[in-house]
Amino acid sequence: MRLRNKPWAPQEIADNPHLIIPNPGDYKGKWNEYFSNDKPLYVEVGSGKGQFVTGMAEQHPDINVIGIEKYDSVIISALELMQEVKLPNVKMLKEDVNEITDFFGENEVDRLFINFTDPWPKNRHAKRRLTHEGFLKKYVEILKDGGEVHFKTDNRILFQYSLQSFSEFGFALKNISLDLHEDGLEGNVMTEYEEKFSRKGHPIYRLEAVWKK
Amino acid sequence: MRLRNKPWAPQEIADNPHLIIPNPGDYKGKWNEYFSNDKPLYVEVGSGKGQFVTGMAEQHPDINVIGIEKYDSVIISALELMQEVKLPNVKMLKEDVNEITDFFGENEVDRLFINFTDPWPKNRHAKRRLTHEGFLKKYVEILKDGGEVHFKTDNRILFQYSLQSFSEFGFALKNISLDLHEDGLEGNVMTEYEEKFSRKGHPIYRLEAVWKK
Repeated sequence: MRLRNKPWAPQEIADNPHLIIPNPGDYKGKWNEYFSNDKPLYVEVGSGKGQFVTGMAEQHPDINVIGIEKYDSVIISALELMQEVKLPNVKMLKEDVNEITDFFGENEVDRLFINFTDPWPKNRHAKRRLTHEGFLKKYVEILKDGGEVHFKTDNRILFQYSLQSFSEFGFALKNISLDLHEDGLEGNVMTEYEEKFSRKGHPIYRLEAVWKK
Repeated sequence: MRLRNKPWAPQEIADNPHLIIPNPGDYKGKWNEYFSNDKPLYVEVGSGKGQFVTGMAEQHPDINVIGIEKYDSVIISALELMQEVKLPNVKMLKEDVNEITDFFGENEVDRLFINFTDPWPKNRHAKRRLTHEGFLKKYVEILKDGGEVHFKTDNRILFQYSLQSFSEFGFALKNISLDLHEDGLEGNVMTEYEEKFSRKGHPIYRLEAVWKK
């Protein structure tokens, strides 16, 4: 994603702590208290401009949705989107996914989403892929028993890598699609990337990985 | 595969018991005695006209290779191919894969191959797919600890199904390719189907599934 410098972004973010939550570690293990309800918690890592989290929150008022995105210049668009849709069940964290276990407690998350993440094609960058074993270790810490990771990408090589990574780690794979828009998926929430790639006729790859503790 | 009636086939097969082995149950657990060596044993299920098993045997003189194919009218071509290549390390069984555990002992097989098998697209025929749980149960009985199933197909829906089937059964997936001829695979032995589909530019899907006992 092209990162434009947006000098006004940090102030705008700081001015909206009810949408982009500062110090999320304060709510680790008690997000149900933060939301004042016991709805399931869905988390998206690498949320970009927030189209997926706001779409999910809109489609599922019975779910709390939190997106994580580290870049000011990107999350600012998610902020504008949240201000527009005015939904109580979607929030963002301007944080690094590497620190995800600082923000969520053990067994706190029902479902994790990874959508169109950077493929980091070079082998020496494999550790940065959000489906690398190093990240999976963190995800399973915060996932509930039977919790799921839902992963979508248009990058074939990353998808191949991720199938193997999830499988070798011990996740059970299900609902795999190697051409999502050909197979169809009820209630699929598209990201802006997905819309763009689909229009070009590129296949979208998708899997669900289930974690049994 | 189109099955032509070949009335001479049964006699020709019966006349070549050193290539298409009758009563393979006699050698269950003692294929190393049959081959008079301790080379690893590779088995292909649904071998069709035998191009893969003869190709494997040629490429790997250090391996014993056995193909299973139930149709007279198809295996007759494999017989002709074996007569042509004159290799000591490739044999065929004219048998039904459903009975595979009658022909191989526990922990006897190093590697199983499934190539371009019938996708049985209707759900009510799922049990006939050679990657259905019912078959996997049989495969793991005869596979060694750490043994592998190598699976290739041009059928996207069958591949999606198979990824899930292997994963849910407890196999670990590796070396997954969603476009084999784009990714390349050293020493890939092509079947006649594979050659045909690749020429048409269709992607070939491939996976390796590892079984840890």
